[in-house]
Amino acid sequence: MSIHEKLASLHIALPAPGAPAAAFSLWVHSGDLVFLSGHIARRGGAAWVGKLGAELTTAEGAAAARGVAIDLLGTLAAAAGDLDRVRRIVKLLVLVNSAPSFTEQHLVANGASELLIELYGEAPARSAFGVAQIPFGSCVEIELIAQLRA
Amino acid sequence: MSIHEKLASLHIALPAPGAPAAAFSLWVHSGDLVFLSGHIARRGGAAWVGKLGAELTTAEGAAAARGVAIDLLGTLAAAAGDLDRVRRIVKLLVLVNSAPSFTEQHLVANGASELLIELYGEAPARSAFGVAQIPFGSCVEIELIAQLRA
Amino acid sequence: MSIHEKLASLHIALPAPGAPAAAFSLWVHSGDLVFLSGHIARRGGAAWVGKLGAELTTAEGAAAARGVAIDLLGTLAAAAGDLDRVRRIVKLLVLVNSAPSFTEQHLVANGASELLIELYGEAPARSAFGVAQIPFGSCVEIELIAQLRA
Repeated sequence: MSIHEKLASLHIALPAPGAPAAAFSLWVHSGDLVFLSGHIARRGGAAWVGKLGAELTTAEGAAAARGVAIDLLGTLAAAAGDLDRVRRIVKLLVLVNSAPSFTEQHLVANGASELLIELYGEAPARSAFGVAQIPFGSCVEIELIAQLRA
Repeated sequence: MSIHEKLASLHIALPAPGAPAAAFSLWVHSGDLVFLSGHIARRGGAAWVGKLGAELTTAEGAAAARGVAIDLLGTLAAAAGDLDRVRRIVKLLVLVNSAPSFTEQHLVANGASELLIELYGEAPARSAFGVAQIPFGSCVEIELIAQLRA
Repeated sequence: MSIHEKLASLHIALPAPGAPAAAFSLWVHSGDLVFLSGHIARRGGAAWVGKLGAELTTAEGAAAARGVAIDLLGTLAAAAGDLDRVRRIVKLLVLVNSAPSFTEQHLVANGASELLIELYGEAPARSAFGVAQIPFGSCVEIELIAQLRA
């Protein structure tokens, strides 16, 4: 199955990238790499607000991370022209808005990487950790590096 | 206008890079990319100390981020030999020393990226988020990746 | 001395990389770069738990960071086939699990970068900062980018 068929089978429609919320580009190409800016979790068109270990459960955080991955794929499709041009997802940086005692950032991040593995058949490298806050109070922010086909 | 003329018109004199405060290089080249180490906000020769959402306002944080961008440009000039050799600023990682309730990291980060856009005419990719602390208690730390001309 | 001789002289035996603790790859190649996932500090086979500025001293944090660097070298040896194929360590991202008042992340990170400098003779670029938490409550997490020989 192509990426497009896999997305359809999962009933995922990729969003068009929105306007950046501040002074930055959503992506920048450099050689065959493309660097995507940090995307924050959204729900109902606004930031999905809350801290893991306080207002949100690990399962909710993983759902938020999955949503960010879908938004990143929408941006990546725009950056690459077509998702078939993506050779592989190289690395994720997964930031989890965390109360000081929450230690399941890896399970939150799985919400994003499990979807990417399902689509691309291989796992990216990844770092996941807890941060003190995220713009707009969002619960998760993810930055992505991908390699495109020549 | 060249980058040098733009800097002059903004009355910005780039500092020579200082010595690293610990065991690291200020930059490392890899192919046409150059990776700059995290630079912390300084004022009067010392760390600009404080947390956003506690001791510092968003406007102060943005001013601090602009100062870090100037220091990064000083380092980038040394790394590239000349700022005219910079093809583009690829990505910023903007770390904001944040009280747990401060959610305007994107506005703080604009202090850096707006200057870079003014100088280079295009916006870098970027992630900005709140961290629990920064070395020496500094309010902002920024890491930068740039692409050089062949 | 080769890297292998230096490791032997330091009585360091590199561990084989363990299985990832979640849905990610321990490393991904892209061109001559290799991106290693964030590795957390371990002691006695489990996460080395604690926050700097609360349960752990700066010296303990530096020892933990040195241990993470050894684990990263074990992964890098597997990724590169042989450590002699590593051209240079490009960049470290050093995350220190920090109480809100702890400001010596750079000294903790030195535990990792001083070992790498001893082995490779040159210092990587680096960012170090305090995070709110790390998976499994570990005290330090480090991500690494290396460049391999053609």
